[in-house]
Amino acid sequence: MKKILVIGAGRSTVSLIDYLVKHAPMDDWEVTVADMDLKLAQSKTGNNPRAKAVQLDGQNEAQRTALIKASDLVISMLPAFMHAPVAKDCVNLGKHIATASYVSEEMKQLDAEAKKKGLLLLNECGLDPGIDHASAMKIIDEVHEAGGEITSFKSFCGGLVAPESNDNPWGYKFSWNPRNVILAGQGTAHYLDGGEIKYIPYNRVFSQIETIKVDGYGSFDAYANRDSLGYQKPYGLENIRTLLRGTLRMPGYCKAWNVFVKLGLTDDSYQVHDADKFTYRSLLSSYLPGSGDVKKRLADFTGKEADTGVIDKIEWLGFFNDTKIELKQGTPAQLLQNLLEKKWLLKEHDKDMIVMQHLFEIDNAGNSKLPKKITSSLVVKGDDQHHTAMAKTVGLPLAITVKNFLTGKFNSTGVQIPVTKEIYLPLLDELKNYGIIFEEHTN
Amino acid sequence: MKKILVIGAGRSTVSLIDYLVKHAPMDDWEVTVADMDLKLAQSKTGNNPRAKAVQLDGQNEAQRTALIKASDLVISMLPAFMHAPVAKDCVNLGKHIATASYVSEEMKQLDAEAKKKGLLLLNECGLDPGIDHASAMKIIDEVHEAGGEITSFKSFCGGLVAPESNDNPWGYKFSWNPRNVILAGQGTAHYLDGGEIKYIPYNRVFSQIETIKVDGYGSFDAYANRDSLGYQKPYGLENIRTLLRGTLRMPGYCKAWNVFVKLGLTDDSYQVHDADKFTYRSLLSSYLPGSGDVKKRLADFTGKEADTGVIDKIEWLGFFNDTKIELKQGTPAQLLQNLLEKKWLLKEHDKDMIVMQHLFEIDNAGNSKLPKKITSSLVVKGDDQHHTAMAKTVGLPLAITVKNFLTGKFNSTGVQIPVTKEIYLPLLDELKNYGIIFEEHTN
Repeated sequence: MKKILVIGAGRSTVSLIDYLVKHAPMDDWEVTVADMDLKLAQSKTGNNPRAKAVQLDGQNEAQRTALIKASDLVISMLPAFMHAPVAKDCVNLGKHIATASYVSEEMKQLDAEAKKKGLLLLNECGLDPGIDHASAMKIIDEVHEAGGEITSFKSFCGGLVAPESNDNPWGYKFSWNPRNVILAGQGTAHYLDGGEIKYIPYNRVFSQIETIKVDGYGSFDAYANRDSLGYQKPYGLENIRTLLRGTLRMPGYCKAWNVFVKLGLTDDSYQVHDADKFTYRSLLSSYLPGSGDVKKRLADFTGKEADTGVIDKIEWLGFFNDTKIELKQGTPAQLLQNLLEKKWLLKEHDKDMIVMQHLFEIDNAGNSKLPKKITSSLVVKGDDQHHTAMAKTVGLPLAITVKNFLTGKFNSTGVQIPVTKEIYLPLLDELKNYGIIFEEHTN
Repeated sequence: MKKILVIGAGRSTVSLIDYLVKHAPMDDWEVTVADMDLKLAQSKTGNNPRAKAVQLDGQNEAQRTALIKASDLVISMLPAFMHAPVAKDCVNLGKHIATASYVSEEMKQLDAEAKKKGLLLLNECGLDPGIDHASAMKIIDEVHEAGGEITSFKSFCGGLVAPESNDNPWGYKFSWNPRNVILAGQGTAHYLDGGEIKYIPYNRVFSQIETIKVDGYGSFDAYANRDSLGYQKPYGLENIRTLLRGTLRMPGYCKAWNVFVKLGLTDDSYQVHDADKFTYRSLLSSYLPGSGDVKKRLADFTGKEADTGVIDKIEWLGFFNDTKIELKQGTPAQLLQNLLEKKWLLKEHDKDMIVMQHLFEIDNAGNSKLPKKITSSLVVKGDDQHHTAMAKTVGLPLAITVKNFLTGKFNSTGVQIPVTKEIYLPLLDELKNYGIIFEEHTN
C-alpha cells in the first residue's frame, strides 16, 4: 500500500483529492489530507475509508516531518514559497514530492540528492504551468520528428468566467488567488519577436495587447507574461524567432485595468495614508489629477482613449460611490483587492472557464506533410463554485501524473516537469476522459 | 585647537574643504581630509599647513575608528548609506558629526545617547535638504510671528546647467550623482493639494508637471518629489492645505524623459539580455513596439504628444546610431546612465546653476501688514567644472554651520537640521557673502 500525503486543501484541490480518493481502492493507496483548517480538509475527504483528514500547521516542523515520514509521496498544495521546506524534508526522509508550481532555485538544488536517492521532484504539473507544457511539447516533438522547425510559438492561457455566468462588465470573477490577479504584469515582460528580444514594462503591458480568437468563444485580450524566454531551452526551441507567452482576459478588460495601473491603484509597495478615512470615490480622487467631479476627471484622465466601456466598468465597481473602505490600512493594491473580492466573487452556481491556445508557425523544410501553421485550443468549463475548471485543470494533471509514477508508467527521478513523452503522453490521454481535450487546426 | 575630519573628497566637497582650510588659522582648526583615493584628497587640501590628506578605506573599521578618535568633529561626505556606521563610531567615541544627507532611522536612534553625551548630530545641512530648510523656515517663522497662517507652500529646487553653458537640447548636464538623476521619480510621489492627499505614480510623475517662473531665467519644468509630507511637522505647518516639493528641469526635459520612463529604459531591476550585443539603436528598438525604422516607430510611440523637441533630444543622445553599447552587462538604467555620463558631461569651463524657489500663500488673519503671497527665489552659478554651484551650495552650509557650532554660536545637541533660528539665521547671513541670496517678492 502506498501512502499519499496532500498538504493544503485550498480551492484548487477539489479535483485532485477526488481523483486520488477514487483511485485509492484500485491502486491500493491511503490518502491523507492535511490543512491548517481541519474542517476544510474533512470537507475534501468526506467519509471515505481510504482517506483521512488531519490538522497541520505548515510552519510546525515537527508535526510536518512526522506526517511526511509516514507517507511515500507528498503533494504540496501550499502557497509556492512553502514548497521548499517541504521538499527538503521529503528528500531528507526519502519521499517523493509533487507540486503544480514553478521550479524554484531551492528545488533545483535538491535535484542531485534526489536523483541519488531515486526520488521524484515533480513540478509545474498543473494548468499553467502544466497542461501548457504537455500539450505544447506534444506538437513540438511531432514537428521536430517530421523534420520541421518551429519558427514562431505563441501560447496563451486565462482563468475566466464562462459566458453563461458572465454577468459583470469586466467579464471576470476570481477562480484563483486574487492577489496574483491584482499584481499581474508587475515587472517587465520580455519575449522574442522576429528574432529580436522585446521588453514591455508594466506601464504598457495592458495596452500593448494581442487579440486571440477561439472558435465558438469569440475573441480575447492577451497581455504578455513576464517571462516568455525561460522555456526556449526546455522546449528545445533554440532557433525560434518568435516566442511569446501571455494571459487571456475578456475583450475590454485590459483597457480598463490599465486605468488602474496608470492611476497607481495596483501599487503594493506603500501604505495609503489613513486608508480607513477614504471612500472608494475619495480614493480614486486622490489618484486623479485636479479637483472636482470624479467621474468627469476620470473621463479626462482616460482621454481620447476613453470609451464608455472603461468608465462603466470602473463605475460598476463602486468608485463613484461614497462607500467607506473597510480595511483599517493597506497598500493601494490591498484596498483594490478588498473591493474586487466582493465584486468579482464566483457565486454558488457560477461556472468558471479555462481557455488555452497555442499558435505555432512552422518551417516544414520541404516536408509537404507538415502544416505551416498549427492552432491548438482548449476550453474547459467548471461545474459550479467548488468544482471549478481551475480546480480540474490544476489538480487532475498532478493527480494523474502522480498515479502514473506510482503505478510505474514512468520512473524518472530528480526535478521533472511534464515536457517528456513518458510523462505528457499518458497525461494528455487520460485528461481526455475529463473533457480536457485540445482542438487542433492546421493550414 | 579643534580637529576636523572630513571623510570623502568627492565632487561636492571642494567649497566645503576650501572654507574649512581658509578658516583654520583664525579659528585654530586642523583639517584632515580622508578618501579612498589619496590623490583626490591631496588635490583638495593642497599644501596648506593647516590641512592634511590621508588615505582611508571607509569600510576599514580599525583605520576609520583611529582617525575619528583623533578628531573633535567629523564631516561625513560619504555616500548616504555609509553615514550610519561613521555616526555610531562618533557617538561611541564622543565626537560630533555633520552630514548633508537626510536623517536616517539609524541616525534617529543615536539621538538620545548623543544628547546625553552633549554631541551634535547635524544632518540635512547642504542644499536640498539644507538651504531649502533654512530659507523656508525664516519665512514660515516670520509669518507665524506676525499672526499669519501659511495655507500653501510649494518648494522647488534643481541642479541645472547655466544658460551660457547650455549647449545641448536637454538643457542638462550632471553636477551631482548621475545614478540619482536616472532613477529620479521612481516610487510614488505624494503631496497635499487643497487639503486632499494626492498620489502620482512613476508612470506619470514626468507628465503631470508644473511650470515655475524665475525672474531673469524664464520658466522651468517641475516634477513632484516622492515625499512632500515629511516636513509638514518639522516646519510647523500642521494646518496647511497645499504642500508640494518638486525638482526643476529646463522646459521640455520632463516630456522627453517621460519617453524613457514609458519605454522602460530607466528600469534598474533586471539585467538586459546580452547587453554588449546591442547598439543604442537596437536597444531602443527592443523597447519599442513593432519592427522597422526606429525613428518612425519612436514618433508613433510618442503619438500626438510628439513634438520634434522630444525626438530631437533622443536623436541627439545617439539612439538612432549604431554605436555599440560599451558595458558588458547592465540594467536598462545602467546602460542609459553610461551613455548620459558621456553626453551630459560638465566640461572644463562649463558653469552649472542651482535654482530654488519657494511659493507661499498666506492667510493673514486680518493683519494687513502681511502679504498674501511670498515668492522667494535663489539662483547660484558655478565658476567652472570643479567649483560648481552644486559644490558651493552643498558644502558651504555644512562648513558654516560646523564653524558656528565650534565657535559657540549655537550649542544644540542630538539630531539637528537647520530649521531652528539659532542655526538658520547666522547661516543665511553668511551665505550672502558667497552670493547665495534669496530674492523675495510679495503681493
